[in-house]
Amino acid sequence: MEINELGEFGLIDHLTSGIERQNEGTLKGVGDDAAILQATEGHRTLVTTDLLLEGIHFDLTYVPLQHLGYKSAQVNFSDIYAMGGMPRQITVSLGISKRFSVEDIDSLYAGILTACREHGVDLVGGDTSASMTGLTISITCIGEARPEEIVERGGAHDTDLVCVSGDLGAAYMGLQLLEREKSVYMQQLREAQNAASKPDELPAFQPDFSGREYLLQRQLRPEARRDIILALREAGIRPTAMMDISDGLSSELLHICKQSACGCRIYEERIPLDYQTAVMAEELNMNVTTAALNGGEDYELLFTVPLTDHDRVVQIPGVKVIGHITKAELGHVLVTRDGGEFELKAQGWQAKL
Amino acid sequence: MEINELGEFGLIDHLTSGIERQNEGTLKGVGDDAAILQATEGHRTLVTTDLLLEGIHFDLTYVPLQHLGYKSAQVNFSDIYAMGGMPRQITVSLGISKRFSVEDIDSLYAGILTACREHGVDLVGGDTSASMTGLTISITCIGEARPEEIVERGGAHDTDLVCVSGDLGAAYMGLQLLEREKSVYMQQLREAQNAASKPDELPAFQPDFSGREYLLQRQLRPEARRDIILALREAGIRPTAMMDISDGLSSELLHICKQSACGCRIYEERIPLDYQTAVMAEELNMNVTTAALNGGEDYELLFTVPLTDHDRVVQIPGVKVIGHITKAELGHVLVTRDGGEFELKAQGWQAKL
Repeated sequence: MEINELGEFGLIDHLTSGIERQNEGTLKGVGDDAAILQATEGHRTLVTTDLLLEGIHFDLTYVPLQHLGYKSAQVNFSDIYAMGGMPRQITVSLGISKRFSVEDIDSLYAGILTACREHGVDLVGGDTSASMTGLTISITCIGEARPEEIVERGGAHDTDLVCVSGDLGAAYMGLQLLEREKSVYMQQLREAQNAASKPDELPAFQPDFSGREYLLQRQLRPEARRDIILALREAGIRPTAMMDISDGLSSELLHICKQSACGCRIYEERIPLDYQTAVMAEELNMNVTTAALNGGEDYELLFTVPLTDHDRVVQIPGVKVIGHITKAELGHVLVTRDGGEFELKAQGWQAKL
Repeated sequence: MEINELGEFGLIDHLTSGIERQNEGTLKGVGDDAAILQATEGHRTLVTTDLLLEGIHFDLTYVPLQHLGYKSAQVNFSDIYAMGGMPRQITVSLGISKRFSVEDIDSLYAGILTACREHGVDLVGGDTSASMTGLTISITCIGEARPEEIVERGGAHDTDLVCVSGDLGAAYMGLQLLEREKSVYMQQLREAQNAASKPDELPAFQPDFSGREYLLQRQLRPEARRDIILALREAGIRPTAMMDISDGLSSELLHICKQSACGCRIYEERIPLDYQTAVMAEELNMNVTTAALNGGEDYELLFTVPLTDHDRVVQIPGVKVIGHITKAELGHVLVTRDGGEFELKAQGWQAKL
């Protein structure tokens, strides 16, 4: 169905009807000039926003719209968890060019709403517009935390332990894999177009990813680490500084060090890697540590805890201590497997702007 | 300066350094995974968002970037006022293509920050990204109101008075004027390009708008009606339903009637018009009432009040009673100057999607 058949308000009704409310604090969602929320008593409000543009942040050749919706929501939840809070509401604005049908936008929304259900989040508003080219997705997430639960970037101290959740570099390897398969496919497409004139003989994009499922899942379907925040609360650990890893470990760690006015020393051998990440890096003749340091899109949590929390933090499944915070004058050091020392550099953002 | 010279984080630092905090409830703005806000005790939180895309919502041939920034912020504030609330914070996400310089984005931000200062709003976050084509602006605004101050769309009752602030149709006429001058200019440009090969001989876009300043101001520099909300509070009037007029009076009034399950009866002769709007309509051979009903982008307030508030509401400068609410079965009627009756139709949105 063409979107013009519904019109803007018809489309919004179609997309948002039957959404069940998940939070008592969501007093009114879609349908007025603004949503009405009631902050939980004793809590502060957290606000984060992300803009995703076709051709910059995603490539619809290999990203299904449902996954794109899911990921768009998760990356916002991840920012709220990275403050120590719980996401409560999102607004979703879409710019939609003519090549998208109502069914396409349904798929995108289905992914967004699946992520919302998993994290107990209400979709409370947004804006829907035509666009000249491509798909634009802008999501703002509202979260909450008690003052004592909030963790900023600037609280790390000398001797604190540097911890990460999950493993790193897999999402980046997933992207390399998809890009490689896309270029193979584009080549096939050109050859098929030269050989046959019937459009129904053109091959579909159906590459074989067996054995690489984890890399694809990490790229296409990241999971914001609510579980880690809950486990930290359970263990009575309050990180001194925290961020989510969206631009790569190096870049994020340098942010924490800059805002905390400190240095760091991390160990290559302790950086958590998945087996598939290592295999793929070798196949592509890339350095796996570089992928883990600069790859980005892991959406894992990077945080620091006091040294006295060591025994408790290592017992949390999926958390690994990779080094420690130092005095600022000691710099930002990566100790390699062979004992060499390198200065960490931020490279993640350069690809993005 | 090219944006790449600064990088994403450099650009954000450049744009947001030196911003002064205007609200005590803004505990932390730009610089972490999320902003941290403290809702005022006894208040609810209001959230609204708008997406503005180049080529759909604005044309940079005739819209200066500073005005665009100013307007982008105002349209969000307008949505918060339309709920009876006060705007407190905004996030601003930008997608920026290569043709924009740092100075361009400075101008855009200068406009946004001017609007923020005028309305006591803090810029607390955002996202900045490259874009393939054109400029994308996504703004989310957080506001507050006491529960008893909040006005939704669904509370209008039979016999309530229908009121509007300011005057209508001028922003639409301003747009027509700009579009006309643009097409004259494009013609001049083509002729100049054919006649001369030196680029410095091409004419600049400097049309003469004397005597039309009000229309341009309404299109380029709308003012969200904080003053009307404060005047209503001062007068002890609580509207039963309220919206801001962004898509045209007809469309908005039909929203209120639908959500309030009622009809309405408004009078053409009472619709507030500026003299310049009427003159321009005549010059363009357009019906001025149609412009007022369907033009859109007025950002005035449309609201209903109980009949008993009549004497107080007419004393508020800039507010006009244009008709009344009826039972649903009486329909949505416009009574023309000559006593004819027409059914109101929503046309505003069709141009937008």
